[in-house]
Amino acid sequence: MSNLPSSVRIMEVGPRDGLQIEKTIFSTEQKVELVNRLVDAGLRQIEVGSFVNPKGVPQMADSDEVFRRLPQRDGVEYHGLWLNARGLDRAVENGHVKVTGKLILTATDTFSKRNTNKDIDETLAAIPEWIAQYRRVGIEVDDLHIPAAFGCNYEGEVPVSKVVELLARGEEVMKANGCKLKRTSLADTMGWGNPEQTRRLIGAVRERWPDLQIRLHLHDTRGTALANASAAMDLGVDEFDSSIGGLGGCPFAGNKSAAGNVCTEDLVFLCEEMGVDTGVDLEALIEVARFAEEMVGHELPGKLMKARSLSRYRTH
Amino acid sequence: MSNLPSSVRIMEVGPRDGLQIEKTIFSTEQKVELVNRLVDAGLRQIEVGSFVNPKGVPQMADSDEVFRRLPQRDGVEYHGLWLNARGLDRAVENGHVKVTGKLILTATDTFSKRNTNKDIDETLAAIPEWIAQYRRVGIEVDDLHIPAAFGCNYEGEVPVSKVVELLARGEEVMKANGCKLKRTSLADTMGWGNPEQTRRLIGAVRERWPDLQIRLHLHDTRGTALANASAAMDLGVDEFDSSIGGLGGCPFAGNKSAAGNVCTEDLVFLCEEMGVDTGVDLEALIEVARFAEEMVGHELPGKLMKARSLSRYRTH
Repeated sequence: MSNLPSSVRIMEVGPRDGLQIEKTIFSTEQKVELVNRLVDAGLRQIEVGSFVNPKGVPQMADSDEVFRRLPQRDGVEYHGLWLNARGLDRAVENGHVKVTGKLILTATDTFSKRNTNKDIDETLAAIPEWIAQYRRVGIEVDDLHIPAAFGCNYEGEVPVSKVVELLARGEEVMKANGCKLKRTSLADTMGWGNPEQTRRLIGAVRERWPDLQIRLHLHDTRGTALANASAAMDLGVDEFDSSIGGLGGCPFAGNKSAAGNVCTEDLVFLCEEMGVDTGVDLEALIEVARFAEEMVGHELPGKLMKARSLSRYRTH
Repeated sequence: MSNLPSSVRIMEVGPRDGLQIEKTIFSTEQKVELVNRLVDAGLRQIEVGSFVNPKGVPQMADSDEVFRRLPQRDGVEYHGLWLNARGLDRAVENGHVKVTGKLILTATDTFSKRNTNKDIDETLAAIPEWIAQYRRVGIEVDDLHIPAAFGCNYEGEVPVSKVVELLARGEEVMKANGCKLKRTSLADTMGWGNPEQTRRLIGAVRERWPDLQIRLHLHDTRGTALANASAAMDLGVDEFDSSIGGLGGCPFAGNKSAAGNVCTEDLVFLCEEMGVDTGVDLEALIEVARFAEEMVGHELPGKLMKARSLSRYRTH
């Protein structure tokens, strides 16, 4: 009845996208412990921190050190965020960061300008320089991340056609500079998405780029994140970002009460219940969510950490 | 890309299924005001109260009076719950209750026994007497409600085949007594459901009874309720129970932290964003959710009442 993937890859973004909006500045030890616990529970891709100006995001000021303290573990990738060549260099020099050739191409001018100080045209114009910077460190750009791909609090609706056009414009510049578009991350940064829109967006992107690997980054601002993830999985989408306990939100999204990313353990529960393998130990993950809640010192939105899984009822 | 219905009918169950587990006993005035506000926001089916033993459910002790104080309004139905002939008579005598020929047939023996003091066989054996009682007040039984149709905290998994078998057994008794099965309400009372299971359950029920009107009663215990509702809508299901602000839970479900019903305003948001008409004024409904939150005196799980709708961003 559906086209569910047999397994999904989950990128845990709590330590970066989640913690960055917390008011408390956490210690390097706390961050390292959170990441280690996430890996222990079975997560294999963790967004650990960002190499940006510490004045803008003080929570991430110690990212260099956090990455350095993480042990190399088989099959585990520690990802990060950078917004300029200096940040890319810091990530490369760190040695513990999985540096991939990704570019951010926000779907609306206003949000793009607020996040990166460049509008869409300026961002596209900067791609050749980015490609050169990545090549300097031996990496080919193949991945376009599209924040606000489902809608924007500053500019309103983002039509599916606009996202497709933006990907096409980005691909054109990449091609002209010898790069191939292999992956995209479509982000519902401000929680605008619904399942039907998700299906249309994925359908339209697949129609144009049948082989493009699609990742979804969903926020649960209006409670629809799991429904959107489920609709996407139903079309075979098998890469998702999520955050432990539902940590997160977006400090630049113009809505202080914006809920966080789709909750990792709730997503894992949904997947595993449908027979979609995540490689994650759900019971262990719930314990990590409790650890994260204690660490941030306030209630997290995740449901499963309150209700628990179904395993204890299945022994009957 | 989907088989979404053009509109859905939402039964608001907050005043009954929601309030009954609150510790505070609310005044008749408060309950009447909540229901009136829900109707003002556009809801047309409200489960207002229950005609059960007030010792068991003290919160519903004034249901008679609550119903009586509700004004007759065009197209508005005030529904109620009863578990024996005495309750049915109270509902009929009240005069403000939309009395329909519904029977409760719980999917597991243990939960059935706890809720109604009868196991499944005993419940089936009592159907002829129920049919007689309904006929005494001029109503034909045509509706089977199946609590725990997605799983049970007492007995574990509830296979789809068990639900189909139960409906078939119920239908057989109904037929033998001259009644036709026209509707069913499948309840995920304890939050076990996932979208794939929802699709399979609906598919199997439709396979056997192509014309049966299916209603879903979903709880958001593990965060999957909207995803399940969305999967069901995608198959054309167009009747749902929900509760304002996500009020509720189930006091007999063996899990105190069980979250409430799927949240009405979050469900309405999901529907309206996909072009599925609910007849409800979302902005007004969000205000009712805030009223409900203030009334119960603790935070409710609904997301939209915190994040607000997208309308204010669409003026850009």
